[in-house]
Amino acid sequence: MNFQQIKDKDSSDRLAHKRDEFHLPSGRIYLNGNSLGPLPRSAKLRAREIVERQWGEDLVASWNTHGWIDLPFTAGEKIAALIGAGPEQVLCCDSISINLFKLLAVCLQLQTGRRVVLSQEDNFPTDLYAAHGLQQLLGENRCELKAVGADQLQQCLTEEVAVLFLTHVNFRSGKLHDMQGLTRQAHEQGILVVWDLAHSAGVLPLELDAWGVDFAVGCGYKFLNGGPGAPAFIYANRKHHDNFEQPLRGWMGHASPFDFDPGWEPAGGIAQFLTGTPSILSLATLDAALDVFDDIALGDVRQKSTELSSLFLALVESRAELQDLVLESPRDAAQRGSQLAFSHPQSYAICRALNAEGVIADFRSPDLLRVGFSPLILTYEDIWRSVEILAKVVGEESYKAGEFNRRLKVT
Amino acid sequence: MNFQQIKDKDSSDRLAHKRDEFHLPSGRIYLNGNSLGPLPRSAKLRAREIVERQWGEDLVASWNTHGWIDLPFTAGEKIAALIGAGPEQVLCCDSISINLFKLLAVCLQLQTGRRVVLSQEDNFPTDLYAAHGLQQLLGENRCELKAVGADQLQQCLTEEVAVLFLTHVNFRSGKLHDMQGLTRQAHEQGILVVWDLAHSAGVLPLELDAWGVDFAVGCGYKFLNGGPGAPAFIYANRKHHDNFEQPLRGWMGHASPFDFDPGWEPAGGIAQFLTGTPSILSLATLDAALDVFDDIALGDVRQKSTELSSLFLALVESRAELQDLVLESPRDAAQRGSQLAFSHPQSYAICRALNAEGVIADFRSPDLLRVGFSPLILTYEDIWRSVEILAKVVGEESYKAGEFNRRLKVT
Repeated sequence: MNFQQIKDKDSSDRLAHKRDEFHLPSGRIYLNGNSLGPLPRSAKLRAREIVERQWGEDLVASWNTHGWIDLPFTAGEKIAALIGAGPEQVLCCDSISINLFKLLAVCLQLQTGRRVVLSQEDNFPTDLYAAHGLQQLLGENRCELKAVGADQLQQCLTEEVAVLFLTHVNFRSGKLHDMQGLTRQAHEQGILVVWDLAHSAGVLPLELDAWGVDFAVGCGYKFLNGGPGAPAFIYANRKHHDNFEQPLRGWMGHASPFDFDPGWEPAGGIAQFLTGTPSILSLATLDAALDVFDDIALGDVRQKSTELSSLFLALVESRAELQDLVLESPRDAAQRGSQLAFSHPQSYAICRALNAEGVIADFRSPDLLRVGFSPLILTYEDIWRSVEILAKVVGEESYKAGEFNRRLKVT
Repeated sequence: MNFQQIKDKDSSDRLAHKRDEFHLPSGRIYLNGNSLGPLPRSAKLRAREIVERQWGEDLVASWNTHGWIDLPFTAGEKIAALIGAGPEQVLCCDSISINLFKLLAVCLQLQTGRRVVLSQEDNFPTDLYAAHGLQQLLGENRCELKAVGADQLQQCLTEEVAVLFLTHVNFRSGKLHDMQGLTRQAHEQGILVVWDLAHSAGVLPLELDAWGVDFAVGCGYKFLNGGPGAPAFIYANRKHHDNFEQPLRGWMGHASPFDFDPGWEPAGGIAQFLTGTPSILSLATLDAALDVFDDIALGDVRQKSTELSSLFLALVESRAELQDLVLESPRDAAQRGSQLAFSHPQSYAICRALNAEGVIADFRSPDLLRVGFSPLILTYEDIWRSVEILAKVVGEESYKAGEFNRRLKVT
């Protein structure tokens, strides 16, 4: 694709108007929306409103008058519309790690006589840690984490497995699992499935209800743009609602929280997954951020996402300076999420040098340069420019300056 | 105390200047800071800064450049200074319910052979629910919740008890437990103690280290003024740090989160209590709110608190119109926290009528009118005016209007 063709793509981009709904820093190209989504203007306004008018002026009455008490559900319904979930099956609360603990415990409760929780070795580590913690608490006779290579997953779907839990899009490579197919295969063996949608929600069309998914968790601060550490979400298919009690009980998950009853009686349906008082500033900001999805189709988002990543890849592979970057993501765009990963011995320094030039990318240990594509804010020209800058940084070896090799605390 | 004496008290109030550090709605007297603390100006500024400059402009780099990654600890150290805790023993994360689950599980792990978790029936319900949930998950042969009347607590401190967990200030009556004495008595029987400081932190001088307390949790949004649903805090006495692993594992509690190691290795010390990614907007706002405590002594806060509540009580008891309000809090100010509760058959309607007159008080089921005293924002004259208005509402029976009897969702 030549430069004029790239300009033409931007001219005909059906999502181009979305960029104006975000507050974006000038002079930078942000290829890290898969780590922390950018700031929607709706979220900026809501954050001021929540702090300065609702908390500042209306104080505790805001729980009623401004619907704070309903926010886990109102934000949840907005996410439900993005993941193919019917009403009253999604809510926002806590973190992925906490929510996964709840769900794995629920699955073991639903699966009497089975104790294996199956995942893959290169799942996002916090998902494995949540299972480690449950195993340590319950003992291996009640919970045994089995983490295998991705190529061994199918043969491990046996009758001893209680639950299969996987992240849909691999956090390093972006490789996609076949959610529908794996869910069906697991169900054939009586296995429940929990999907982590951290890198999927908001950028990939999903049909959780139609695919019969049992449970899911997901992240509020990546492609949903809810702000740093925004609450996670939890999906529980309606078919299970009457059959479990999740273990992390708290007053917000009680049937009548304001009766202050010392006896436990869980709220019905999805609501019992609430535990303590939600962080309203973070939750309301996420709720407002979700409004950017109101008037767009996820099919369009997915199409632009694959075009952006394919363009980036083609441009990288067309540059002689970049021949040492090794693609670690599926070459077929249909097999990957909205990101690309390249390995290079100097990827940490390259990443920092890129950032210094205004192209915000990500490093992932040990040697990956990871670039994410947020279709709502990126132009096709951004992709062209970012590869130009990458070629300059690598071609001129500017990344070899000592300042770029000094490790930061978070990378 | 006559009106001139009340004015004199305000003139000589050493904390009077603190009121200007808060954004307060005009024309209202806020007697509900024990439910949701008011908005400190420092928090308002920080919320804008976090959203609009840090997230909006600096995006993901803010984890390093603006210290987001350290916020659970920086906010924790500010709270440590308020509760008599030396460094590296307090951090801010999650909710009280979640943190209590972690701590009760840790206590059972530390106490091999003991399975009873002891509390009192009228502990704040979410504390009991957390224990209910742990009991359901582990089974009664490993965890048995025993909730008894407050008058039976001491006789129940026996060698079968693993952990005593209590809320320092009763959420209804404000009655104080003798934290130091009960901790000592529990330790004599080899029992660990976990204190919930929800209504204590920021308004009562505490000496957790000196009293040998094992663990504690507390609330960020009451007297610490951190905003609605601000993260809770967790205290773990250094003496236990090397001896446990908490069960709610997540990447933020790993020794090296950014190595993305599939194997679990807990961070040392207090840091292992972190689980998932913290809600930065809520956490940073709490961190800023804590700065109002920089230049004041909690002894002064406690003295003003007891003077305010004693003045309120004396004025109520001096009014013939208010003789049907029955005090449900300790008469001795030294025996109560920073609140008073009165029972009355019409307390719900009285509370709503009071709110309509600009005096923001709280109702607690079934029949309690609860008033809280935030010494940093209230004047002695506020107390005098609020009792005048209460006497008018009750004396004129204006609360009998139907609008005040219609129940709101949250009360």
